[in-house]
Amino acid sequence: MTQQLAQTSLPRTLTRELPQHEGQTVKLQGFLHARRDLGGVQFLVLRDVSGLTQCVGSGLELPLTESSIEVVGKVKAHPKAPHGFEVQVEDFHVISAATEPSPVEIPKMEWNVNPETMLDYRVVTVRGLKERAALKVQAELVAAFRDHLRSEGFTEISTPKIVSAGAEGGANLFPIDYFGRAAYLAQSPQLYKQIMVGVFERVFEVAPVYRAEEHATSRHLNEYLSLDVEMGFIQDEEDVMSLENRLLAAIMEHLKKSSAAEFALLGATIPTVPAHIPRITLMEARKLVTEKYGHQVGGKDLDPEAERLLSQHFTETEGSDFVFVTKYPRAARPFYAHPELNADGSVDGEITRGFDLLFRGIEITSGGQRIHDHAMLMDSITAYKLKPESLEGYTEVFKYGMPPHGGFAIGAERLTAKLLGIANVRYARAFPRDRHRLTP
Amino acid sequence: MTQQLAQTSLPRTLTRELPQHEGQTVKLQGFLHARRDLGGVQFLVLRDVSGLTQCVGSGLELPLTESSIEVVGKVKAHPKAPHGFEVQVEDFHVISAATEPSPVEIPKMEWNVNPETMLDYRVVTVRGLKERAALKVQAELVAAFRDHLRSEGFTEISTPKIVSAGAEGGANLFPIDYFGRAAYLAQSPQLYKQIMVGVFERVFEVAPVYRAEEHATSRHLNEYLSLDVEMGFIQDEEDVMSLENRLLAAIMEHLKKSSAAEFALLGATIPTVPAHIPRITLMEARKLVTEKYGHQVGGKDLDPEAERLLSQHFTETEGSDFVFVTKYPRAARPFYAHPELNADGSVDGEITRGFDLLFRGIEITSGGQRIHDHAMLMDSITAYKLKPESLEGYTEVFKYGMPPHGGFAIGAERLTAKLLGIANVRYARAFPRDRHRLTP
Repeated sequence: MTQQLAQTSLPRTLTRELPQHEGQTVKLQGFLHARRDLGGVQFLVLRDVSGLTQCVGSGLELPLTESSIEVVGKVKAHPKAPHGFEVQVEDFHVISAATEPSPVEIPKMEWNVNPETMLDYRVVTVRGLKERAALKVQAELVAAFRDHLRSEGFTEISTPKIVSAGAEGGANLFPIDYFGRAAYLAQSPQLYKQIMVGVFERVFEVAPVYRAEEHATSRHLNEYLSLDVEMGFIQDEEDVMSLENRLLAAIMEHLKKSSAAEFALLGATIPTVPAHIPRITLMEARKLVTEKYGHQVGGKDLDPEAERLLSQHFTETEGSDFVFVTKYPRAARPFYAHPELNADGSVDGEITRGFDLLFRGIEITSGGQRIHDHAMLMDSITAYKLKPESLEGYTEVFKYGMPPHGGFAIGAERLTAKLLGIANVRYARAFPRDRHRLTP
Repeated sequence: MTQQLAQTSLPRTLTRELPQHEGQTVKLQGFLHARRDLGGVQFLVLRDVSGLTQCVGSGLELPLTESSIEVVGKVKAHPKAPHGFEVQVEDFHVISAATEPSPVEIPKMEWNVNPETMLDYRVVTVRGLKERAALKVQAELVAAFRDHLRSEGFTEISTPKIVSAGAEGGANLFPIDYFGRAAYLAQSPQLYKQIMVGVFERVFEVAPVYRAEEHATSRHLNEYLSLDVEMGFIQDEEDVMSLENRLLAAIMEHLKKSSAAEFALLGATIPTVPAHIPRITLMEARKLVTEKYGHQVGGKDLDPEAERLLSQHFTETEGSDFVFVTKYPRAARPFYAHPELNADGSVDGEITRGFDLLFRGIEITSGGQRIHDHAMLMDSITAYKLKPESLEGYTEVFKYGMPPHGGFAIGAERLTAKLLGIANVRYARAFPRDRHRLTP
């Protein structure tokens, strides 16, 4: 049996358009979000892409929730209904009936309730209002990312995700059988976006990247959407940080216009991006965290607790949710990171022009100036004990006049999660891949 | 030795901005595209993202071509120079010197000259004016694709490229080692975009897809950028074709504004999209090609020659570069293609609601209405001799009221190549992957 859309000459009206149709008869289409029967009066909630509409009828043969339905009825003001309007049902069709009850009741879902169940039934649970709000915000965020970069003369690129070697040196790669040859999933478009600086000077890419990291944490995904930027003809990494500052401001401005309802639904606040995001060197940051908060930082970088405390400091003292941590040591950066230069132009062996950006206690960006000089790059590869021949396809381009350049990458899911207060980054991706999850 | 950008307080001027600066001293940055010495007068051509500028100087110590350079000089009208202006060099810096001569002379490159050499040295040859024009047009095309769909209420999605089974039944998949488990690179986001219709009703995705096809042709890539669309609450596949018609019109309108220079450089014409692209059923199309052109079509589909002849027919008779070929037989479509329905609502066992779109002699889209009814889908899976259990994660969602829906996918590189008259689709991708090519 095949269901068809009901034949009616009325055009479809969306939930958000109801206020313009008070007193008129409209046709709504969507999913049966919820139903209640109160002594012969039936309340049904229709969910469409733009929201929920309460519909009131009687004597209707209602299908299971999540069925696709069509409601024709009169729009009436009703202060208690969502958006202030309800629809009095005159005609009702089932477009496509659910054949089983939903394994999770969509209106009753909450974050963090049985997370594994939520992900197991993701094909249905992703319909939840909060789940879809997160993905909608991400779509708007990505659109604003592209729009702003285009306005600054950046060109979008599409680079290979099947590669013969890793950009970071070889660890954490997923192997692919490429017609019997060994290949890998790209960890990052790093090397390709640098090559494309030689073509378009300023480039960006929005594409998935892959990290075969075994750990399962609330902040990592094995497949995520990377927002990558690279710009040429820079003076130093300050140009890159300024760009990211402007970009984040533009993204947040766009979200205020596009996504207020989603932020309200999730109880989250859109941050204000300072005209000049505070900067602190890594060395100063480590000192500050130890002296002010008594937290001893291990390793060469910041640990998660140090990131949290440092963010707290800048929120309290400068009212900024963002802080750039600059001048990373070479030991914490990949081989292509540009070293700091001494006053006489010689290379500083310890410090690079790499930076991280922290937002609300977590790193959301790594970036910096990259090495553009061929000899310096080959020295760095040797110093990192990497095999020059495995990187030959990449290093080749630096023989041909690459200008000074730098860039950064933002993990779309991590930024989305932090913006919206979602505790686990997996809920900021439609169908997350982790150590144990290959489906749905 | 590290080169630095010259310190000058002048802001950078782009080639395309020269006409606004006649008589003024400007600072240009870019690559040394070409150089000539004529009896003490030096002509250098600077290439930046916006074009070429002829600069004239003397006594300059010029580096190898492709070096990054900075020129400070006066803008002078000069009818024979590109854009009608040249720059008289007052100051000249090498920002970053090429250390080897370019393996291919960038200004002398042409399409189809030693294609394998061009691809071997892609890290440099991609800087060529024609090469970059193709990629720039593609970037604009993709931007217009997104912008138009957003204007029609579509939401962008990001779906997994690591999957546990293929969308088309299992052939032509690249295997991945996913933490010791078998997984594959996604051939298409088909199943995921359908699931997301249950969330956002109208969705699109721009992302790479993978086909492990062994053949090497001028129209196939093993990794390409797929422009995917799926929309819910449709009446039938006509709604999908109408959308694609509007979408293509919007894309071509955008290209007229954004990319006239690139089309001119490549000697290509932006097509006019008819308000109603002609439609012909596959059966009629096969008959027409045989009767009008004497071409016998094998198989169940159209072969490349038949596609060419059919396009020729519609160009000649209706002045349309586009034609929809509709009502594909089931034998030429995947299991999820929605069958045609008879007048009484029963299923036609032979014909589907699938269509192709031909453009200038080649298929650029496959699309159609999809099965949304769970029972019908399970019947189809059985009829296609596929294993229901391998598709379980996918078929599950059809128990939950999926509305009638359909969509299509456009291969970005193939459309770009046909638009620009590029004979081999590999030149419409920055770093193509084919049977033998894994680098650069």
